Amino acid sequence: MSGHHLHLRVATTEEMLRVYDDGNVVRHALAFEAALARATLAPEIADQIARACTGLEVDGETLAAEAAHAGTLAIPLAARLRSLLSGEAAAAVHRGATSQDVADTVMVLQARDAQALLDADLGRFAEGVAALVEQHAETRMIGRTLLQGALPTTFGLRAAQWLSGVHEARGDFLRACRRALALQHGGPVGAHPPSERLAAILGLRAPVAPWHGRRVAVAGLASSLGVLIGALAKMAGDIALMAQDGIGEAREPDIAGRGGSSSMLHKRNPVGCQVAITAAVRAPGLVASFLAGMAHQQFERGLGGWQAEAPLLAELFMLAGGSARAMAEVAEGLEVDAAAMARNLADADRGDDIGKSAELARALLAEYRSDPDALRDQ
Amino acid sequence: MSGHHLHLRVATTEEMLRVYDDGNVVRHALAFEAALARATLAPEIADQIARACTGLEVDGETLAAEAAHAGTLAIPLAARLRSLLSGEAAAAVHRGATSQDVADTVMVLQARDAQALLDADLGRFAEGVAALVEQHAETRMIGRTLLQGALPTTFGLRAAQWLSGVHEARGDFLRACRRALALQHGGPVGAHPPSERLAAILGLRAPVAPWHGRRVAVAGLASSLGVLIGALAKMAGDIALMAQDGIGEAREPDIAGRGGSSSMLHKRNPVGCQVAITAAVRAPGLVASFLAGMAHQQFERGLGGWQAEAPLLAELFMLAGGSARAMAEVAEGLEVDAAAMARNLADADRGDDIGKSAELARALLAEYRSDPDALRDQ
Amino acid sequence: MSGHHLHLRVATTEEMLRVYDDGNVVRHALAFEAALARATLAPEIADQIARACTGLEVDGETLAAEAAHAGTLAIPLAARLRSLLSGEAAAAVHRGATSQDVADTVMVLQARDAQALLDADLGRFAEGVAALVEQHAETRMIGRTLLQGALPTTFGLRAAQWLSGVHEARGDFLRACRRALALQHGGPVGAHPPSERLAAILGLRAPVAPWHGRRVAVAGLASSLGVLIGALAKMAGDIALMAQDGIGEAREPDIAGRGGSSSMLHKRNPVGCQVAITAAVRAPGLVASFLAGMAHQQFERGLGGWQAEAPLLAELFMLAGGSARAMAEVAEGLEVDAAAMARNLADADRGDDIGKSAELARALLAEYRSDPDALRDQ
Amino acid sequence: MSGHHLHLRVATTEEMLRVYDDGNVVRHALAFEAALARATLAPEIADQIARACTGLEVDGETLAAEAAHAGTLAIPLAARLRSLLSGEAAAAVHRGATSQDVADTVMVLQARDAQALLDADLGRFAEGVAALVEQHAETRMIGRTLLQGALPTTFGLRAAQWLSGVHEARGDFLRACRRALALQHGGPVGAHPPSERLAAILGLRAPVAPWHGRRVAVAGLASSLGVLIGALAKMAGDIALMAQDGIGEAREPDIAGRGGSSSMLHKRNPVGCQVAITAAVRAPGLVASFLAGMAHQQFERGLGGWQAEAPLLAELFMLAGGSARAMAEVAEGLEVDAAAMARNLADADRGDDIGKSAELARALLAEYRSDPDALRDQ
Repeated sequence: MSGHHLHLRVATTEEMLRVYDDGNVVRHALAFEAALARATLAPEIADQIARACTGLEVDGETLAAEAAHAGTLAIPLAARLRSLLSGEAAAAVHRGATSQDVADTVMVLQARDAQALLDADLGRFAEGVAALVEQHAETRMIGRTLLQGALPTTFGLRAAQWLSGVHEARGDFLRACRRALALQHGGPVGAHPPSERLAAILGLRAPVAPWHGRRVAVAGLASSLGVLIGALAKMAGDIALMAQDGIGEAREPDIAGRGGSSSMLHKRNPVGCQVAITAAVRAPGLVASFLAGMAHQQFERGLGGWQAEAPLLAELFMLAGGSARAMAEVAEGLEVDAAAMARNLADADRGDDIGKSAELARALLAEYRSDPDALRDQ
Repeated sequence: MSGHHLHLRVATTEEMLRVYDDGNVVRHALAFEAALARATLAPEIADQIARACTGLEVDGETLAAEAAHAGTLAIPLAARLRSLLSGEAAAAVHRGATSQDVADTVMVLQARDAQALLDADLGRFAEGVAALVEQHAETRMIGRTLLQGALPTTFGLRAAQWLSGVHEARGDFLRACRRALALQHGGPVGAHPPSERLAAILGLRAPVAPWHGRRVAVAGLASSLGVLIGALAKMAGDIALMAQDGIGEAREPDIAGRGGSSSMLHKRNPVGCQVAITAAVRAPGLVASFLAGMAHQQFERGLGGWQAEAPLLAELFMLAGGSARAMAEVAEGLEVDAAAMARNLADADRGDDIGKSAELARALLAEYRSDPDALRDQ
Repeated sequence: MSGHHLHLRVATTEEMLRVYDDGNVVRHALAFEAALARATLAPEIADQIARACTGLEVDGETLAAEAAHAGTLAIPLAARLRSLLSGEAAAAVHRGATSQDVADTVMVLQARDAQALLDADLGRFAEGVAALVEQHAETRMIGRTLLQGALPTTFGLRAAQWLSGVHEARGDFLRACRRALALQHGGPVGAHPPSERLAAILGLRAPVAPWHGRRVAVAGLASSLGVLIGALAKMAGDIALMAQDGIGEAREPDIAGRGGSSSMLHKRNPVGCQVAITAAVRAPGLVASFLAGMAHQQFERGLGGWQAEAPLLAELFMLAGGSARAMAEVAEGLEVDAAAMARNLADADRGDDIGKSAELARALLAEYRSDPDALRDQ
Repeated sequence: MSGHHLHLRVATTEEMLRVYDDGNVVRHALAFEAALARATLAPEIADQIARACTGLEVDGETLAAEAAHAGTLAIPLAARLRSLLSGEAAAAVHRGATSQDVADTVMVLQARDAQALLDADLGRFAEGVAALVEQHAETRMIGRTLLQGALPTTFGLRAAQWLSGVHEARGDFLRACRRALALQHGGPVGAHPPSERLAAILGLRAPVAPWHGRRVAVAGLASSLGVLIGALAKMAGDIALMAQDGIGEAREPDIAGRGGSSSMLHKRNPVGCQVAITAAVRAPGLVASFLAGMAHQQFERGLGGWQAEAPLLAELFMLAGGSARAMAEVAEGLEVDAAAMARNLADADRGDDIGKSAELARALLAEYRSDPDALRDQ
């Protein structure tokens, strides 16, 4: 057993791990080089380069070591391609691009893959929570503020707030993707406009100018993932607290082998919530690092700032993906104990006037239903 | 001399300090209570309460001490209002609201004031940089990557990238404001819809439901300020580096008493850039704290999460405001030394092919000109 | 009512606010200038300067505005002193020092004041918790893991873990203070050794060399405050959870006017815990900002890094001070409900074998008692 | 090519990657289980378990998937051991321990391995910089403050400040290791004292009580790594700036294939500095996440806080290890251009009075020499 993904595997989904697999990095990098050739070179030269890209057998360990030595993946990769070619084709590999063009475009292509996965889980999550809202719009419970019993509300409203929060965050995330997922291409000092043909081949937007030192859009994307993770964790925290002995109003679905204890057979740990909360412990620091990098983007292409971004964005996507999946499963199978809610409400002795809770729950649900894919700009 | 604003004064503008002055907090809190009365009570009762709000003489120290003791400002403030009233009016003060309704709405009202100030400075900044782009679209200089001389570009393109980055961030910030600047009003457990009349009186949007535990929109606003501060610092860092002895391509305007040294009379320190860079050192941590608070928003209204937000948002606005003003002044008065640029370019001995730099600079400028107020959704 | 301390007042103690009052900044800055004169100038000149320092009437607003304009407090302050003097004395003001010498030494002098306050509250806190440990070493309760009922333990052990954690953090904090609280003095480029006489007059340690760009010790101090705040928040979180309806094992002392609700008369909010938890939401970001500044300490004295530190350290001290005081009060007056603990334990139906909990509680207590002032290096 | 270490490989050393390899995690976990058996069971039972630990063939993918499903590695690992055993031995596997005992002890064992690697590179770094100090104690150069030319100093003093800063941070790091590297062992709710025999077998310190919810020592270790990374980045930033065209006072060693550009053959990028600066962009956020986790350590063993720590500590060690190695190589081979320093000093026209720079450089060097392994408490 070797590798570095035990920790990642606990925190994210298998599919997301595949997006951020090293093999996928190299595949996207080669796709960039092949598309660059097709977009900018004579067809017969481009064909040779594209074939080299397809045919290249990558020796992972050596390539990684050489990339580390060179300080960038593009250099050893281009060298390998050249070694498979000769003459004009060999000379034309990577022409007009710089290492950062490759690195940033790969980051964007991975983000596009990751966006699709994450959004699918967010959709599934939303439907799961929406069902809870519908079913429990009028299920009475004691509302709690500052962790103290306060006045009655309904579980449907609490769930509707979860739904609405994550849905807002999803809309922001999708919008940030639309902004950030653009081709990077500008050559050594960003003095050339990104090739529209290259963008079209890769299925990306071509921005007006390269964004080597202008990281606003990717920083916004990173932030949006941080906020999304926070919104998911709000729900996770609530459920873990509702599952406490002495409260017992809800608990995670009972799945064989999930949430057991290595020492206490009776336990059912809120492992889905754990994934989401752990993600929320880690994400704010990742966003902070991303933003801190903005002050290290000197001149045309900086030193140390953008180089820090790809692993940060990868980690944010992996955490968000793991959190969304975990909470989707929790939402879908949540065991709601309406009797316990009623009992706790009676114990609190605060009457049972739920105000407009049920209407509010339905209003938030309707807002969600009116734009279930979070595509509309709010 | 007493107070706690020496550090703030260096970091922000006088106007922004006034927005975040304690007096302004109390004024907005009283405006909330008065508007609440008008929106929800009989006119004659509302009039009495509104008059009490106007007439209240606030004893700052005592009020602050009592707020600290109570854990919230709303309690001692309502008590003071009640002491000025009697009968039904006294009993009706703050009715239907909870402390967090006041606290959050005050935070939003201050943010609205701060937004206007910040946006004005961002507009001024943009015009200042746009002028640099226009004037220097073709001013040749050596492009620098990873802090090393690379290939030729133009100063206009470098400046256009500054403009474009800050402008993108400004658009995101304004959009985040449109989302976040909503009335908070829902009562103890958020079981009531925010009053539309109350919102109208205060000039705020009335959301579908209260957002006591749903902090996505304010977290998005905080993040957008962090990104904006980062975009401004990118430019500040570039200028501070361009002003180095041995490079000398640009320097901050020469303003009497600005940027001197207490020990070296010959120095002209890049004090404007210092403001922007210092802000960028501080902002990522503030955003991280804001996001970390999202996991502390338990149930209907949580413990420790939302309570941390107001000072964080205040600090982010103050830093952004100080940074925008400082960099607007730097942009407007920047001393560009085109001869030094030419000399450094010649020393680098990399030819003078600037590629499409000039066109790119103008394209970015045109993009800005097409939406100078950053109001269009990108 | 004006100023900027409403938020601070909720988060910290009055005494700590005084340490970080602007008047105290100026007092310490003048103490530096007077001591510098005494340490390095002829007595008659030094006397004149020292008198000017004593006699100077500070016009707060103007001084703050000038400091902001100049980018440093030292310049307008020295100018004021010179205006009170003439001839040699006027010329000798601030000689041999640089702005950062003043700023850093003031930061250190404030930290020394703050350390004393904080340490006193930590001592009080420790005694309060130690009393809980003693009293409840054998008080049975259900232990909880991953927020689920697990196996029996004693409340004394839980409290002993609180004590031990904060005590460890206190030891680290005191050690960090011993390291960090050193005179800053080296002149414009730090080419001179800090004056031992100057250090002696100010009661500070004289380091081997100035530390203008070497921020390890202060960064360590900032981090130690972050860890301390985290240790206090662990206990605060536990108590807030124990106080929940349905658990009810402990709650904060009942103090008139403390923890009330503006809308629900029956509530007793855990306001002390709120202070500690809010501090812990904010502190990690402050530490991150402090550490991020280390990469902005260029050359002999940098741009933007050290300038960000003083407000960060001030905020960390204020939050730590507020948290320590709040939790000391909570510890001293904690209402422990042993009957509820017994009832919850019985409900959990996990027997009542508490293992070695009582012994462990006493062992941790003994460890504390062996070094109650946390002065010994661990 | 598959896995997730391309990004890690750029940021750290091969040796450090091996410490944090998944295989090493499993090896340490099995070492814990074997040692636990030896420390607490009859020899013949212990022997069987130890043999199972040695003989277990781990199926990486499946194990990782099961660990993710269960929420902890200990459960599927113990299940595999049990399947290799029968009767009493099968039943005795993992007895008296809980998942967190394994997870925390593995984290500590990895940290011990990582400490040794990191400290070796720090020692090598220190000797490299010390040689620079010795050689250049009197090499004149212009000191720079706020990125502006100021007054003369020597390169030896600048380098001595680098040495001293990293050395201080190294001392703090080693002390934090002594504190944090303790056995975790206390069973489900931490009601038992850590086994001294178990500690002895694993070569770890046995603390008075388990530290499941008391994370002060590990948080201190994480912080110390953050500070260390900051201290290394300070030097990296200086060198990258000294290597700028137009300044040219020093540059990284010329190593074949290191620091090239994929598009500009003439470039020699400061790739070692890039590693250190990138690490410093990422580290503050990691420390913040670690500290944020402290407020999520509920009761005896919490939900989401400690679970976030191991990957954070791993990443901090990897970044520190990569940074220390990179800067050791930079220090050892730094190309210092004393002529350029002299030229820049002359251009600055500030005389050549270097004050006590040379003496200070030697004093800092002597301080280092007096405790070259940073073992003495400062």
